[in-house]
Amino acid sequence: MDFAEPPLFTGQFAVNGATRLYGTIGDPIRQLRMTGVMSHVFSALGINAVWLPFEGGAALLPVMLEALGKMRNLGGFTVTIPHKTAILPLMGRVTRRARAAGSVNLVKRDADGALSGDMVDGAGFVAGLEAQGHRVRGASVWLVGLGGAGGAIAAALCEAKVGRLLVTDLKAARADAGLDRLSRYYPDVPVASIAAEQHPPKGIHYAINATPLGLRPGDPLSFDPVTLDPDTVIAEVIMSPVETPLLQRARTHGRRVHHGRHMLDHQIPLYLDWFGIDSKGIDVVRLVRSLS
Amino acid sequence: MDFAEPPLFTGQFAVNGATRLYGTIGDPIRQLRMTGVMSHVFSALGINAVWLPFEGGAALLPVMLEALGKMRNLGGFTVTIPHKTAILPLMGRVTRRARAAGSVNLVKRDADGALSGDMVDGAGFVAGLEAQGHRVRGASVWLVGLGGAGGAIAAALCEAKVGRLLVTDLKAARADAGLDRLSRYYPDVPVASIAAEQHPPKGIHYAINATPLGLRPGDPLSFDPVTLDPDTVIAEVIMSPVETPLLQRARTHGRRVHHGRHMLDHQIPLYLDWFGIDSKGIDVVRLVRSLS
Repeated sequence: MDFAEPPLFTGQFAVNGATRLYGTIGDPIRQLRMTGVMSHVFSALGINAVWLPFEGGAALLPVMLEALGKMRNLGGFTVTIPHKTAILPLMGRVTRRARAAGSVNLVKRDADGALSGDMVDGAGFVAGLEAQGHRVRGASVWLVGLGGAGGAIAAALCEAKVGRLLVTDLKAARADAGLDRLSRYYPDVPVASIAAEQHPPKGIHYAINATPLGLRPGDPLSFDPVTLDPDTVIAEVIMSPVETPLLQRARTHGRRVHHGRHMLDHQIPLYLDWFGIDSKGIDVVRLVRSLS
Repeated sequence: MDFAEPPLFTGQFAVNGATRLYGTIGDPIRQLRMTGVMSHVFSALGINAVWLPFEGGAALLPVMLEALGKMRNLGGFTVTIPHKTAILPLMGRVTRRARAAGSVNLVKRDADGALSGDMVDGAGFVAGLEAQGHRVRGASVWLVGLGGAGGAIAAALCEAKVGRLLVTDLKAARADAGLDRLSRYYPDVPVASIAAEQHPPKGIHYAINATPLGLRPGDPLSFDPVTLDPDTVIAEVIMSPVETPLLQRARTHGRRVHHGRHMLDHQIPLYLDWFGIDSKGIDVVRLVRSLS
């Protein structure tokens, strides 16, 4: 071997004793791509920090929350599958949109010591829509799927003051619980459930697939975009494949589409805000886009 | 800013979702240099792993031990000041040399789930002596200072079956406790305490400074090397400065000297063994030396 080969992490932002730690808790976690994305973001912002994978089951959650209080260089973390629901009751302070979603994906310790949780999957989705020029406030939205992603998006849509939210979920109990939470935390937003057989609703600005249908080849469509009004924007939460069968069919029939990746890209500035990291005027979303 | 700038951690060993985590717990931890050293070692071995700083007080110790059981990609860690003594009673299994030293600096979770601790400061020191051609087994050794480093070195010298170990420490209670531990765990090794006014002992192969004297300019010598037999090797545990006043004086008077950095360099292979990482025949000590 060559002893003269260059260091692994060279330059200004190599991990050293002063590096701050951030990361994502999940199980599994090997698929995590945020490590690479955030290394670019931290580098661009001149922050000595690293984004790590934290792999473990439900028993890891209280340990990581305890670590937030005891490890001074642990800045905070995000939470992914399967922990987003289970971590909520462990938090000391939770944002309204997270309570309404029934889940948390962003955790830090506040200055007063409280363990603080937010849910920004939905906020990222809404920010992504708006960044594409799609006004959310006052809009009529049909959301198909009220699981983890759907619940978060529903809460964020209510927080953004949509004019009307229609929700469809085949699991009645889950849909009922989700609607109950929305009406409790956003009583001023008209939210209604519509059954699958009532498709398609009329006068909808945005129709969103928040089900997993489209992840795997051969999945049926969660709804048929062609039955909707011609000017309805068809939005997707699935990031891979980029062009799901839903979006392909919508585009083929002249519909405007909105891709799944916007939801994640637009969460990054929300992470930075949450962790108190100054983005120094850098367009972080554009930076993240430039990486892929 | 330039969006086309290269990734922070490029290439085969960038942190990603499959990266294993190792690190050092300390308070403070900003001075930690092992992050850079181990990044080279992992890279040379083709291991997807990163060495991190974990900064926190005594309350962090049980959290990190709990994390060892709950975070599947946390491989283990080392422990530095001020935690080496406090972590010992929290372990489920401790090596003989660590019990004899009264401290632990290397921690993992064994296959059976037990939290397992070792102390390799002393073993690294002994390995460093032997790598320089200095035979330890059967030797007569004078060890000055029986604090953290001294206690670990004393235990490792006993484990290596020195012929005779003389110990000097100005703190009588600490010296007594240290000697008690040594005689309990290594009853076959003749260990005796000698008072400062009894200097210098005769017939000594190795005289070791394990006190902090020499770290700061103007520190007095912990002993005068010139009063010892001319063939006594004068050994140091202080790594910075490289040439302490003790070593300078010894060398000026024709004595053979042994530098402090050997102790740390020779711990790296012990870390790898402990964590079950195959060093694949690579001379890790030589690699580490080539970095500075």
